[in-house]
Amino acid sequence: MPVKKLTEGFLLSAKNFFRFDFGLLLLSTLKWLLISALLGVIIGSASALFLSTLTWATNYREQHLWIIAFLPLAGLMIGLTYHYWGASVVKGNNLLIEELQSPKKVIPIIMAPLIFAGTIITHLFGGSAGREGTAVQIGGAFADQFTKLLKLKARDRKIILICGISAGFASVFGTPLAGAVFGLEVFIVGSLTYNAILPSFITAVIADYACKAWGVGHTHYAIAAVPEMDSVNLLLSLGAGILFGLTARSFSTLNHGLSNLFAKIKYPPLRPFIGGIILIAIIYLIGNTRYIGLGIPVISEAFTQQEAYYTFAIKLFLTALTLSAGFKGGEVTPLFFIGATLGSFLSFFIPLPFGLLAGMGFVAVFAGAANTPLACIFIGVELFGTASGVYIALACVTAYLFSGHTGIYRSQTIGAPKHLLLRRR
Amino acid sequence: MPVKKLTEGFLLSAKNFFRFDFGLLLLSTLKWLLISALLGVIIGSASALFLSTLTWATNYREQHLWIIAFLPLAGLMIGLTYHYWGASVVKGNNLLIEELQSPKKVIPIIMAPLIFAGTIITHLFGGSAGREGTAVQIGGAFADQFTKLLKLKARDRKIILICGISAGFASVFGTPLAGAVFGLEVFIVGSLTYNAILPSFITAVIADYACKAWGVGHTHYAIAAVPEMDSVNLLLSLGAGILFGLTARSFSTLNHGLSNLFAKIKYPPLRPFIGGIILIAIIYLIGNTRYIGLGIPVISEAFTQQEAYYTFAIKLFLTALTLSAGFKGGEVTPLFFIGATLGSFLSFFIPLPFGLLAGMGFVAVFAGAANTPLACIFIGVELFGTASGVYIALACVTAYLFSGHTGIYRSQTIGAPKHLLLRRR
Repeated sequence: MPVKKLTEGFLLSAKNFFRFDFGLLLLSTLKWLLISALLGVIIGSASALFLSTLTWATNYREQHLWIIAFLPLAGLMIGLTYHYWGASVVKGNNLLIEELQSPKKVIPIIMAPLIFAGTIITHLFGGSAGREGTAVQIGGAFADQFTKLLKLKARDRKIILICGISAGFASVFGTPLAGAVFGLEVFIVGSLTYNAILPSFITAVIADYACKAWGVGHTHYAIAAVPEMDSVNLLLSLGAGILFGLTARSFSTLNHGLSNLFAKIKYPPLRPFIGGIILIAIIYLIGNTRYIGLGIPVISEAFTQQEAYYTFAIKLFLTALTLSAGFKGGEVTPLFFIGATLGSFLSFFIPLPFGLLAGMGFVAVFAGAANTPLACIFIGVELFGTASGVYIALACVTAYLFSGHTGIYRSQTIGAPKHLLLRRR
Repeated sequence: MPVKKLTEGFLLSAKNFFRFDFGLLLLSTLKWLLISALLGVIIGSASALFLSTLTWATNYREQHLWIIAFLPLAGLMIGLTYHYWGASVVKGNNLLIEELQSPKKVIPIIMAPLIFAGTIITHLFGGSAGREGTAVQIGGAFADQFTKLLKLKARDRKIILICGISAGFASVFGTPLAGAVFGLEVFIVGSLTYNAILPSFITAVIADYACKAWGVGHTHYAIAAVPEMDSVNLLLSLGAGILFGLTARSFSTLNHGLSNLFAKIKYPPLRPFIGGIILIAIIYLIGNTRYIGLGIPVISEAFTQQEAYYTFAIKLFLTALTLSAGFKGGEVTPLFFIGATLGSFLSFFIPLPFGLLAGMGFVAVFAGAANTPLACIFIGVELFGTASGVYIALACVTAYLFSGHTGIYRSQTIGAPKHLLLRRR
């Protein structure tokens, strides 16, 4: 009797299912829910503290500009601290990526306070840097302490590190979906890790919630006008994407080049000291503070007016200089700045609204530099809504393809080459 | 001189870059732009014709309900056609997936007209089925003709097949980003193919544009209220996600079980004939047409009122019966129906707004059944906006994890197991 057989088979498989898979899955989900909740609350709260302190540092600097004169000394301090207590964590984001690829030892917790303090000092004294690197390192360092605490196995350690990265990213920008996908996407170029997908999303959502629960807000950007997609606008988006990708490539190249240059100074603490002297000379020549710190006001401005051609270039150079000299902070907010102001300027040549081009550049330069196109599409959708989604996506994907294989995270390995014609350089 | 060396190095690498990579990349981008444009226009137009004909068939059926009496004969006709002319393409979506995994021969173009006619006949005479399978098969079949025409190599053939699938999906639902990601995500569970990312996005965007240019619209759904995410709502979302995943699993299991049952009928054309007789008996007993065809009116209704407990179950059974008997069409719109009405009903137990639960179920059941969580998050974001994004994402990811490894596409291989405790069953 086929009907009976079918019913039997169905019931049997349902029985087996509930006995084995379902129970195990539910247990594993509960386990990760608990870990994610703890992790999310801790990292989200740390991000809240970090963002508040950063706002204080930025405001203090803007009101006491004389403090910038001490940038070299601040650099020396950061340099000395990392030289004597932070040698094991000086690689920052790259250390996290390396541990994800070939686990060696638990990330020392000292990574979190060092990067926190280093970033605040960098911003307080007028370096040009970001904040996602800091949040991601705080997240990764805290997460990895659970490895010891819970005696996690290798496979679970990988998941918890991804969760830490996701949580840091999600809470610092207020973009939980982008944060979750960033953690899954960042450590191998051309690949995405599905088996951490649920813990990563849960931790990102909780961290974002925890950060907001402390009353910490995030900057809102709005793209005023989005024209209908058509064949001309498609071509324009691809063209803009290529320029964003080349800009990302220039940033990575310049960053590595300047790092190699600073490496000629044999005593590491001297590097940010000398870098700081060059930086204050440049800031003095420029005569304003538009290009230092996070640069949020200029990013917002790029959405509402056309920027000059040099804005993105100055920020690109100052950030590469700040970070390669050994100051601390992330690359992402400066990349948002570079992309948004470049996009806004490109409206001079490209007949698309400057607000839209600013939004496209905002995410696309970062997509190219970090090799995380899907996370960047989510950033675009979470920050600007879905109306511009198609433009954002085309720009991010094109920039990713045209930015080369060596992005800002040198330790990324190539899972799949971006294009089959290319080999790793 | 380090500065000179740096400049030299930078210029040299820039020169090499523009001489090799950049030129090759640009050429390859232009090549794919041309192919994508052609493909997008053809597939988008085919989807427009398909959607218009489908609307006509649905309206005709609703105004001439006597036509349902001929469902068995319609089934016989489909069965005979596929038996005598369609043996090479009867596997449908699974054939596309198999060709992507281990290329054997070009998909016969006959796949497109057969699935087109088969789907229209299924809907005209009252079967319960979807449309994405049809669009994807039309897309894949057209795309693969370029393999012959342009004498594409194996690696390019894979890209073009992905583009065809993306374009079909994007244009039939009006969701270009979800379509692009679906094509990249569908053929291996737990993996996403980055090296087709640019062609896939371009083709999806163009196909969607081409379909809309023919004046074909898509249904709009709106989630009326989205509460703030908090710890209780997070737990509720995960719980709902588990139920959506189990429902997806039940659909796949029932589908395969009924298919095995129908396989006992040795002469294939008789299967849809007998299936048709069972279907009209059930439709007669139910006494209304809510559960046949696409079911768009009921899907829309689920967003604005609470559905009864049996709505999703009846649709689930009728669709599994229709498709496993050998009628043609996709699974996705019925899965949207099943998820939305289940979600809407669950608001009886789960204290979240029924519109939100309907939206979560809409995408999450499909995410579980097709093993494409990221594409489904994009569907949610493109159809419902970003306000509900976090709920949608948690539901999709959880449903994906809880739906088991054997989804509606039997030919999917397991790139990475969903959970390391699990083996493939």
